[in-house]
Amino acid sequence: MTNLIAMGKAASVASRKLATLTTDQKNAALLAIAAELEAQAEAVLAQNALDIADGRDHNLSDGLLDRLLLTAGRIAGLAADARRVATLPDPVGSEFDARLLPNGLRLSRRRIPFGVVGVIYEARPNVTIDIATLCLKTGNASILRGGKETRRSNKALVAVIQAALEKVGLPPTAVQTIDDPDRKLVIDLLRLDEYVDVIIPRGGHTLHQVCKENSTVPVITGGIGICHIFVDESADLDKALAIVENAKVQRPSVCNALDTVLVHPAVAAEFLPQMAARLAPLGVELRPTGAAWDILKRDGRGANLVPAGPDDFDTEWMALILGVKVCELDEAIDHIHAHSMAHSDSILTNDWQNAMRFVNEVNSSAVFVNASTRFNDGGQFGLGAEVAVSTQKLHARGPMGLEELTTYKWVCIGDGHIRP
Amino acid sequence: MTNLIAMGKAASVASRKLATLTTDQKNAALLAIAAELEAQAEAVLAQNALDIADGRDHNLSDGLLDRLLLTAGRIAGLAADARRVATLPDPVGSEFDARLLPNGLRLSRRRIPFGVVGVIYEARPNVTIDIATLCLKTGNASILRGGKETRRSNKALVAVIQAALEKVGLPPTAVQTIDDPDRKLVIDLLRLDEYVDVIIPRGGHTLHQVCKENSTVPVITGGIGICHIFVDESADLDKALAIVENAKVQRPSVCNALDTVLVHPAVAAEFLPQMAARLAPLGVELRPTGAAWDILKRDGRGANLVPAGPDDFDTEWMALILGVKVCELDEAIDHIHAHSMAHSDSILTNDWQNAMRFVNEVNSSAVFVNASTRFNDGGQFGLGAEVAVSTQKLHARGPMGLEELTTYKWVCIGDGHIRP
Repeated sequence: MTNLIAMGKAASVASRKLATLTTDQKNAALLAIAAELEAQAEAVLAQNALDIADGRDHNLSDGLLDRLLLTAGRIAGLAADARRVATLPDPVGSEFDARLLPNGLRLSRRRIPFGVVGVIYEARPNVTIDIATLCLKTGNASILRGGKETRRSNKALVAVIQAALEKVGLPPTAVQTIDDPDRKLVIDLLRLDEYVDVIIPRGGHTLHQVCKENSTVPVITGGIGICHIFVDESADLDKALAIVENAKVQRPSVCNALDTVLVHPAVAAEFLPQMAARLAPLGVELRPTGAAWDILKRDGRGANLVPAGPDDFDTEWMALILGVKVCELDEAIDHIHAHSMAHSDSILTNDWQNAMRFVNEVNSSAVFVNASTRFNDGGQFGLGAEVAVSTQKLHARGPMGLEELTTYKWVCIGDGHIRP
Repeated sequence: MTNLIAMGKAASVASRKLATLTTDQKNAALLAIAAELEAQAEAVLAQNALDIADGRDHNLSDGLLDRLLLTAGRIAGLAADARRVATLPDPVGSEFDARLLPNGLRLSRRRIPFGVVGVIYEARPNVTIDIATLCLKTGNASILRGGKETRRSNKALVAVIQAALEKVGLPPTAVQTIDDPDRKLVIDLLRLDEYVDVIIPRGGHTLHQVCKENSTVPVITGGIGICHIFVDESADLDKALAIVENAKVQRPSVCNALDTVLVHPAVAAEFLPQMAARLAPLGVELRPTGAAWDILKRDGRGANLVPAGPDDFDTEWMALILGVKVCELDEAIDHIHAHSMAHSDSILTNDWQNAMRFVNEVNSSAVFVNASTRFNDGGQFGLGAEVAVSTQKLHARGPMGLEELTTYKWVCIGDGHIRP
């Protein structure tokens, strides 16, 4: 039986050790994990094969099975990822806002690990290595709970990590996985505030709702986006077509993909038919409303036209579907405030004042001018890694890299100072 | 009847307006509030007198009544506080981590307000002005819920604020108070996640527990501290006596006051009797355990000695009581990890390595060397203001000033950029 309290205690003890490691020691652990992954690839693949067989029995889609699947090549990729994390800069221990107070107290803020990070994530075994290595690099212990479809694979991968940790003299409990599929354990993890410092849920709306409703541990929510592009009157329409296509089509199943395009009335009659013609052969279904419907219906080139339903502008499509609406800038900003999940929103314009208004008045985690929403990503923003994309206001926003896996403490050095 | 959803909506609408104000506009509002406080002092005092009369009827202690009480002088002080907030630097709009990405995208993080801040606080009318003005300065709308004993005073103060906001053309709903004493409204506020971005509870353990258990809005907990001082073998004992006295006696009812002193065995026999002799005339009761008890009992000078009970080292005293234990550095660090609330902990030492170990291994919101824990305070740390002292790991730690009332968004400027 899974004893979550014992796991929490062990993680908490391990986190004290991790917090005092040098970057070299943490990197040695990451390299040991890479080596161990290669050495134990066969054992991991055998467990993964059992997960895959189960998945087939449960009629998982080909897409899901592909996400589950590990191969020798993919394991080599995971080892390479672990080695790459070792090359990233370590934020822990750096000090900022250092100052000498008027009374002679020397004050600074020093970056430290959170302590224990709980991560609840989808059925993707690569995320197990990803999260565990990023947490280790930042001196955090982690308690992982992956999708039940990858239970055996995750157990095998964490066994590999723990073996590597032992080889470099670190507590194996620095990385633990909850391999009991009982869903009640998710709730128990969310209430383990005595030992867990932060919960990062990766997944859909339901998981986030469960976290919000049940967690007594602070949660970083995100990874859900209803993303907008506003095509202004002065936009370069050729560039706009390319950006809308990129944002919608390049990878429709991710959170920074485009969901709704808003088009200024002055260019709608010109732009929308071109957009429909460009997106139709790519298999995109359009969901226009009002004037957008009239223009597209009249034009007749947009292969797949469905009138927008009442919830369509509040739907994260994750598919080749695109809401379409004609409106001016004021209404576009209001629309985004009403329907956005504060993820990624972009204005395409050549009008300075409109660009500034959009940037100033839209408070999504990332706001873009003349660029695709697909750039809201840790790798694209140069953070070197991405744990999640936060859409809440507390702590981190947008892509969370290594620095966002840390907190800080004030360090205050005196010489017998008492408060007057 | 209080319609919290309507209040939330109104606050959310107001917050969009506040987020786009210039610093000058926000300062004008703060100065208008100061002027209005002075103009309407009589009306506020009349309502406060009713609260005070009720308080006497309910046999509130003199200390509580003094916290409730407003006088002409105190209202002048509140007006002066509002004017002082106008002089503080405005963090909103500043950009950091600005960079040009290799592909030509121009990227930065820009500080923005949270949006709507919910604050639940004790029965102190001055906090109403304090929080409302700090939120306004940072462009945040606020929904306030003060202690029920100050209901009429808070209603009058918020009426003053709203009158001032209207005079400078700002939405009065930028600052709202829940004046219905029904406690269910606290729970409703905690679940208003559609409109409220962050909850800051100020108060005791019970309030924090209620927030943790019920809030679907992110909460910043803090303001509760079990604070430690470790007197090392090499400490300057004269300075140590002054620091322990300062940390325990100067203001025992606050969260950064000392709760437990840990003393190295090599100096315990010398230090503890001196400490007892110094603290006894100040009315401090000592709660020693083990060797500390033996030493103090034998010495006989510590006027008020009570053997430490099983929960004493997990108690925030808020009173002239001090836990006492003899131990070495390792045990002191373990003791702090086991009993601290991660608020303020200090080592008094002349040993470089021990000081560094303490600073590195104790991860409280503020760790001190040779200084009183009483310095963990926004004013003392030079932040210019203090909304709360956070002891959680997410977002802010220790004293929260104006900057900690903001979040950020990524601003990304392109020229037709699409993701490859």
